[in-house]
Amino acid sequence: MNNIQLYINQHKDRFLSELIELLKIPSISADSAYNNDILKAAKAVKTSLQNAGCDTVEICETKGNPIVYGEKIIDKNLPTILVYGHYDVQPADPLDLWDSSPFEPIIKKTKLHPDGAIFARGACDDKGQMYMHIKALEFMTSTNQLPCNVKFMIEGEEEVGSSNLSIFVKENHSKLQNDVILISDTGMIANDTPSITTGLRGLSYVEVEITGPNRDLHSGLYGGAVANPINILTKMISSLHDENNRITIPGFYDKVENLSEKKRNEMAKAPFSLEEYKAALDIDAVYGETGYTTNERNSIRPTLDVNGIWGGYTGEGAKTVIASKAYAKISMRLVPNQDWIEITELFTAHFKSIAPKGITVKITPHHGGQGYVTPTNSIGYQAASKAYEETFGKVPIPQRSGGSIPIVALFEEELKSKTILMGFGLDSDAIHSPNEHFGIFNFLKGIETIPLFFKYFTEFSK
Amino acid sequence: MNNIQLYINQHKDRFLSELIELLKIPSISADSAYNNDILKAAKAVKTSLQNAGCDTVEICETKGNPIVYGEKIIDKNLPTILVYGHYDVQPADPLDLWDSSPFEPIIKKTKLHPDGAIFARGACDDKGQMYMHIKALEFMTSTNQLPCNVKFMIEGEEEVGSSNLSIFVKENHSKLQNDVILISDTGMIANDTPSITTGLRGLSYVEVEITGPNRDLHSGLYGGAVANPINILTKMISSLHDENNRITIPGFYDKVENLSEKKRNEMAKAPFSLEEYKAALDIDAVYGETGYTTNERNSIRPTLDVNGIWGGYTGEGAKTVIASKAYAKISMRLVPNQDWIEITELFTAHFKSIAPKGITVKITPHHGGQGYVTPTNSIGYQAASKAYEETFGKVPIPQRSGGSIPIVALFEEELKSKTILMGFGLDSDAIHSPNEHFGIFNFLKGIETIPLFFKYFTEFSK
Repeated sequence: MNNIQLYINQHKDRFLSELIELLKIPSISADSAYNNDILKAAKAVKTSLQNAGCDTVEICETKGNPIVYGEKIIDKNLPTILVYGHYDVQPADPLDLWDSSPFEPIIKKTKLHPDGAIFARGACDDKGQMYMHIKALEFMTSTNQLPCNVKFMIEGEEEVGSSNLSIFVKENHSKLQNDVILISDTGMIANDTPSITTGLRGLSYVEVEITGPNRDLHSGLYGGAVANPINILTKMISSLHDENNRITIPGFYDKVENLSEKKRNEMAKAPFSLEEYKAALDIDAVYGETGYTTNERNSIRPTLDVNGIWGGYTGEGAKTVIASKAYAKISMRLVPNQDWIEITELFTAHFKSIAPKGITVKITPHHGGQGYVTPTNSIGYQAASKAYEETFGKVPIPQRSGGSIPIVALFEEELKSKTILMGFGLDSDAIHSPNEHFGIFNFLKGIETIPLFFKYFTEFSK
Repeated sequence: MNNIQLYINQHKDRFLSELIELLKIPSISADSAYNNDILKAAKAVKTSLQNAGCDTVEICETKGNPIVYGEKIIDKNLPTILVYGHYDVQPADPLDLWDSSPFEPIIKKTKLHPDGAIFARGACDDKGQMYMHIKALEFMTSTNQLPCNVKFMIEGEEEVGSSNLSIFVKENHSKLQNDVILISDTGMIANDTPSITTGLRGLSYVEVEITGPNRDLHSGLYGGAVANPINILTKMISSLHDENNRITIPGFYDKVENLSEKKRNEMAKAPFSLEEYKAALDIDAVYGETGYTTNERNSIRPTLDVNGIWGGYTGEGAKTVIASKAYAKISMRLVPNQDWIEITELFTAHFKSIAPKGITVKITPHHGGQGYVTPTNSIGYQAASKAYEETFGKVPIPQRSGGSIPIVALFEEELKSKTILMGFGLDSDAIHSPNEHFGIFNFLKGIETIPLFFKYFTEFSK
């Protein structure tokens, strides 16, 4: 690849301003109030792909949010890379914790991003990372250096479980046929320590509803005499972990992969400072399953976290009420070999079994997906590793991530191809949180590295 | 008292329509958005007292909501009855569970109220019950039968802890001087089973805030490795009860009055059907402290109930977040001899002590008050008992209530007089809940019974 740094230098201001326009669209998939913005974001992605040189671009309707599909086929005998990304974003709340408006992007310097970072919901997850691929394509087509075929599949429901993408993938095997899938929706260790994600956790996300008495009651007249749904919910949730912070659902750990001492020792070599980790979060101690390190707890071990809880009076002041109902959103991160459907069933059966009399339980599975491991000896991994080495000057570290991209396991099952996770975000970029941002260095480094992956993947496939 | 039933029959339609006008005012004290309605309700009470024959009526400003004070002094040598009530109401939410609008009163018949009941927030608690006293005064003055002096003190902060009333009472001993305090803000067993409340529980109401990491985190990247404030909150709250549903706060039961077997046997004679109780709440079992009956659990035993809980993502769909903070509103109902300030301190110390490392705890006491017991051999109780006997044809049953009127203990301490709790509501009237209502039979029976209390109290005081 020739002149890639020159091209980036010449066009980087435009790249940034184009991304900022995309970030202004509040394409929140979890809330149907933003349906029009979802459509607006899909159209913007379509236009970008056309401008970057795709031959065909279409907005594919689904029962939910549309999928933007684009392709540029230069030679059927050459390899085909399928780029996956998403244009939907997480909800922005709590809004009062943002220092700037989540959909009015601004650029600010930070300690870890001395060249500046773009602050906006979706800056890193995943609009910024997805847009790197579109700009990498623009470079390759406008300089006549595209070495292979490319397909884009950019969806709008990643943050709510990709259920319509699953159907689309199942129904479009031949359209989506490829040799490798490329995704930038993960992170790397640090700007001077590149890494490639080789494992993802699976996910089961459920909502529970606890009902006690048929109406809200006065806590004086009924307090102490009937099961209070909120007290009961806290008791039930609390019982899901034992004193070693192991999950108590029967059968939960049955299929969990137990890593060898050797693999755990290798993992422990990744640079990590517990003091810096605690300082970054303002906490005086970490917390988790007995017998595992922090890095193990959030990568190779499964979890159960309450993501939201509500019930009773939550307004200003005091109300002496016993609520009729209480609710929680609970997600479990799963490790390879745990089946998310089986875990959802185990959770459901167990959670219902621990409800006391006088309480009814309703459980609604939201979504889920299997965990995934990428082999480091594959052509795809080797091509990615060489691309990073060339742009960062260092061989990237293979790393298991605690996050989930549930669709990755499905891609392998349906499309029979491996996924390479070339993530350029940092853990501190606050994805899913207030003040999400993405380093300009990282954005431009991604645009520089991706064409090299295309080059080496094509070479290694010969 | 002559012609009281005749007077009520002649004027009952007007009584009802006046009450309905008062109920239309959303005088919610817990939410400052309703401050103007608070003032409107205070003015309406003032006008009603003037029309009912008070000589002096004034709106007394406080640092919070005003207190309406009125009096009619006919002879300084006669006894003085101080009527207390409140014009503020509980918040109306959850609004979607109301069958009609909470501030557009309607009259409907129910199984327990075949003559009809007024449905509105505040119908029973306490506008309807407070208004009985104003109409009873109207009867006595307009028929020249007022047998003693009367003072009214109607406040607007009962539902948020009466903190400014406390100051008002402390600063106005001589203005409020009285021989007995009369309150209708409790219930009775059934329309054919009159009862008088002889005990109230005390209250300590606190809000807790749990903080973990300094920002919301992605539950994939951090899940399992840091203390999740919602999980921790459920664990902390859950640990506040043991397997026998006894409260685990050290020292909590130290001063709890232990009733004799004899007193418990007497209590057990009150008519009560567990099957009807469960059916009315649509629950298949009751729940509470081992070793006590349902009636004991909600009257002579202390409790700890979560009245509200919130944290994390509670919107539509799913968000994979670990919240930085989680919150709960917790109230403890206390029995006589438990000191609410001491219990609040015990709670605070214990709750902070059970937080794991990595979590900080902030506790804000909302309000509280002591429990209270009325002796049945007092002149006031005897006068009330005779009044009920005359209007209901049955001697009323003395009964401990699970509710709290924190100000009652303060009245005794500051004004050195006993309180008589002549309540006419039913437990099923859904106070603090959607579809609160008050039977028309009960409203009119209250207006009929109160003047007889005035008569017998004056006679017995001679």
